[in-house]
Amino acid sequence: MKIDSTHLRLVGSCPDQVGIIARVATFIADHGGNITASNQYEDVRSKTFFMRYGIELLDTEMSASEFATTFRSLADELQMDWRLTDLAQKPRIVLFVSKFDHCLAYLLHRWKGGDLRFDIPCVISNHETLRELVEWYGIPFHHVPVPKESKAKQAAFEKTGELIEQAKPDTIVLARYMQIFPAWLCRKYRHNVINIHHSFLPSFIGAKPYHQADERGVKLIGATCHYVTENLDAGPIIEQDVVRVRHSDSIEDMMRQGKDVENTVLARGLRYHLEDRVLVHGNKTILFS
Amino acid sequence: MKIDSTHLRLVGSCPDQVGIIARVATFIADHGGNITASNQYEDVRSKTFFMRYGIELLDTEMSASEFATTFRSLADELQMDWRLTDLAQKPRIVLFVSKFDHCLAYLLHRWKGGDLRFDIPCVISNHETLRELVEWYGIPFHHVPVPKESKAKQAAFEKTGELIEQAKPDTIVLARYMQIFPAWLCRKYRHNVINIHHSFLPSFIGAKPYHQADERGVKLIGATCHYVTENLDAGPIIEQDVVRVRHSDSIEDMMRQGKDVENTVLARGLRYHLEDRVLVHGNKTILFS
Amino acid sequence: MKIDSTHLRLVGSCPDQVGIIARVATFIADHGGNITASNQYEDVRSKTFFMRYGIELLDTEMSASEFATTFRSLADELQMDWRLTDLAQKPRIVLFVSKFDHCLAYLLHRWKGGDLRFDIPCVISNHETLRELVEWYGIPFHHVPVPKESKAKQAAFEKTGELIEQAKPDTIVLARYMQIFPAWLCRKYRHNVINIHHSFLPSFIGAKPYHQADERGVKLIGATCHYVTENLDAGPIIEQDVVRVRHSDSIEDMMRQGKDVENTVLARGLRYHLEDRVLVHGNKTILFS
Amino acid sequence: MKIDSTHLRLVGSCPDQVGIIARVATFIADHGGNITASNQYEDVRSKTFFMRYGIELLDTEMSASEFATTFRSLADELQMDWRLTDLAQKPRIVLFVSKFDHCLAYLLHRWKGGDLRFDIPCVISNHETLRELVEWYGIPFHHVPVPKESKAKQAAFEKTGELIEQAKPDTIVLARYMQIFPAWLCRKYRHNVINIHHSFLPSFIGAKPYHQADERGVKLIGATCHYVTENLDAGPIIEQDVVRVRHSDSIEDMMRQGKDVENTVLARGLRYHLEDRVLVHGNKTILFS
Repeated sequence: MKIDSTHLRLVGSCPDQVGIIARVATFIADHGGNITASNQYEDVRSKTFFMRYGIELLDTEMSASEFATTFRSLADELQMDWRLTDLAQKPRIVLFVSKFDHCLAYLLHRWKGGDLRFDIPCVISNHETLRELVEWYGIPFHHVPVPKESKAKQAAFEKTGELIEQAKPDTIVLARYMQIFPAWLCRKYRHNVINIHHSFLPSFIGAKPYHQADERGVKLIGATCHYVTENLDAGPIIEQDVVRVRHSDSIEDMMRQGKDVENTVLARGLRYHLEDRVLVHGNKTILFS
Repeated sequence: MKIDSTHLRLVGSCPDQVGIIARVATFIADHGGNITASNQYEDVRSKTFFMRYGIELLDTEMSASEFATTFRSLADELQMDWRLTDLAQKPRIVLFVSKFDHCLAYLLHRWKGGDLRFDIPCVISNHETLRELVEWYGIPFHHVPVPKESKAKQAAFEKTGELIEQAKPDTIVLARYMQIFPAWLCRKYRHNVINIHHSFLPSFIGAKPYHQADERGVKLIGATCHYVTENLDAGPIIEQDVVRVRHSDSIEDMMRQGKDVENTVLARGLRYHLEDRVLVHGNKTILFS
Repeated sequence: MKIDSTHLRLVGSCPDQVGIIARVATFIADHGGNITASNQYEDVRSKTFFMRYGIELLDTEMSASEFATTFRSLADELQMDWRLTDLAQKPRIVLFVSKFDHCLAYLLHRWKGGDLRFDIPCVISNHETLRELVEWYGIPFHHVPVPKESKAKQAAFEKTGELIEQAKPDTIVLARYMQIFPAWLCRKYRHNVINIHHSFLPSFIGAKPYHQADERGVKLIGATCHYVTENLDAGPIIEQDVVRVRHSDSIEDMMRQGKDVENTVLARGLRYHLEDRVLVHGNKTILFS
Repeated sequence: MKIDSTHLRLVGSCPDQVGIIARVATFIADHGGNITASNQYEDVRSKTFFMRYGIELLDTEMSASEFATTFRSLADELQMDWRLTDLAQKPRIVLFVSKFDHCLAYLLHRWKGGDLRFDIPCVISNHETLRELVEWYGIPFHHVPVPKESKAKQAAFEKTGELIEQAKPDTIVLARYMQIFPAWLCRKYRHNVINIHHSFLPSFIGAKPYHQADERGVKLIGATCHYVTENLDAGPIIEQDVVRVRHSDSIEDMMRQGKDVENTVLARGLRYHLEDRVLVHGNKTILFS
């Protein structure tokens, strides 16, 4: 099918060598592609090259998948780990929540207003609490309770895994989901499961970070958006921010003020991820913001 | 001796009860004192009252020490832990440094320009590196090497303790002093030894925090000004701040950007301390900023 | 009627003189009041005293209004401009909006979740756009179109004035209401009409501040919460904040990022106002945060 | 002369078209250049392309000037406005000051410590005040008083112009120089004269911005680093930042807190400029930070 123009995003990393940009940019130009955005980073210590290109295929009969097929041989030569996104395809996001509604409400409001552009096949929760809010937006809501007992918990996550598979998400967002996401799901959706942690990591890992912050008497509290890995709150960090607190702030005051930071840090991190601005490098991220 | 007016600062904490402010403020007024600044905090959880008053004694024959003597009986009644500062007395500060000069240079420049008002009887260092800078400002510089061997190290800190004693400081500032301050000196000058730690505590305790920050891939780095206690980097926090870093920042870039945060956080924290704005409460601080 | 305890807030300002705190605090203690929060500020230049007290009337038969009546004579002596708030009375807030929904959605969500504690008798808008959202929260929505023609506009605001009067609000919030609030309404509800302006005032007064920011090429954009006066965007500032923008941000990107700042600055400013933390002093505010 | 490797920086802008990156990157690779850093920006509204490349010429007999000569024909084809920097050449900076010493002291300290890498042929001032500080660093100090009378002032700036010419600077920094830099000097060193203004522009243009900030009652004060043009405080902005102030801060407090912001904003802006990260686009800047 011929269309007027195709918008793509090409993201990749490979061992650094002379001429990578020349070869990739020449490839793009030779295939009728206009570069509309471009970022590169040359990591000196690991001698690794990272790149992100926005591409507009002009007046061409080439489809996104044909472009990908053609690019493969160059990528192989460069030993490049890469992916190509067709911007005509809206990303699909499955949201996980528990009882706290602020991150969910924020994302849904921004999503409905068009500030965040993706599809939400469903929301999954271990509680019924937020069903009404989710369904008001016309989104399917699945309640999958997570028992404490080991076998029952395993079964719950198998059920969860099936629901995810049916939803075919590109990205999973844990929007204050108060359960540890199982390792096998982390691996299956590696670098595509995003969590918001309500502290400035690596401070205050685990449960009740605002209580920990209060206990330690810090003068700033924060939030961290990161990829979920097998290690609790230790995955690659995408975005962080902080807000000042005072001695007169109770834990409840911190939680209230923290909500704003959680909301904006999650929304910013998710946007970076969806716009292919985040490239994972070991346990760190390259962020083409 | 009669003087036109005496400026005092009265700081204290005591079990909370009805009428404390009334009694203290009435005492001040009855003794010809005009309250020029006032802060209180009523901690609900511990039922503790904290206060800070700036007082101008008008047309009175009462000296600061007479005021203190008279106040004692009220303070005893209220079971108050308190101190009175005569603003005519400049505080005395002993500075400790190693090789990094930025915090020292910043404090000395601000001190010479009159932005920070105190006397510096001496600077003590475990290296000769910064002697020239210190002596250019006309301040005595003591070089006390700190050997690694346990007994020699103990002797070095005994020598250090004597130098401090001779200097009669109100406050000791560790301006990037890369040695662990001995527990007995921490106790002797309890809540009067201030350290600047080059991370956002409790993240990255101990040595090489910028290396740790780089390793973890955080998106913000910070600095923390805190009171020194027997527990490394775990004392009550006075002030903190952060600055954004990027994936392209090397450890050296972080160290360079961190300098600005260290400088301003230390200067702000020290100013709060000298202006009696910091009241220690357990392992936290009340900050009347 | 006897109740267990009454919570009050006493706020005032008067010419500075010796003994004000003593007299006010003694008055409170003598009438069985426990001071649960206290702030004062002594403005040197204007020789004005400002105060804010949280008061718990313990085991007393005195009501809030009796306390007020009794306090009047002391206030008169001190030439004090003051107000007393009974915390048992929820404040009433009328919200004004146009078409932009983010500030409204943010306030309503926080209000429903209990983070902001007030009653909303109605929302008034010059457009129908946000009716559905408002009514979902069970709040009456009034549509009062504002024509451009002078007489018709005047009539519209007379109608608006009547609606406000029926709603008996303590505070009016212009949550991105894109009309100039008439001077007579500003005067009638003086220091009780709060606006959120989508720039860092005094930069970019008036319409389309994000376009102005883009035009000038600033590196930070901001938002300002202020009291509305007869002079456009020139009333006393309550709260401000900023967010960093980049050369690659379009005006739409700025508007999107600005929403977060607008939301949090308005919510913080409104909270300060409702908690009687804002005292107007000429065209500036004392902020007991 | 053959050297092991030559480090260059190539910066340019031109009308956008398909294939620019391909052609430039291919040119660099074909001439033995390894791209060590790369930034591009495609401005949609003006259809302009901006680029910055760090280049390492490996094992080549080509000098920086030969590279430039060879690049010229490609640049002409692309209608590119460009410049090439040989990193072996340290930039030369002339500093202008009046009486305030904080920005000067900060830059000199950072310069001596190696954090800022440039040569300072001289410092020029309309006052003698800072001679001692400048000469301590071994830098020539020129005192050129600037009379108020029009003809004498003109003569002073002619003298100034001669001193600059002898110093052959790449960049001129007005480090709190309290005189209006004449239009003809702005034009002569267009986009190479950097000023630090002690407000968050466009707020508080002109003299005494801290007094203006106090008068308006803002809750944040700031500083702006910008290129100097004929229009006072209206040139392209390089960097800005802010710091929170309180109602209790006097103008002197603001000035003191503002110093930190001025220092870091100027140092950051100057570093961006020296690293060729700032490309002027109309009255705005592209900032490859």
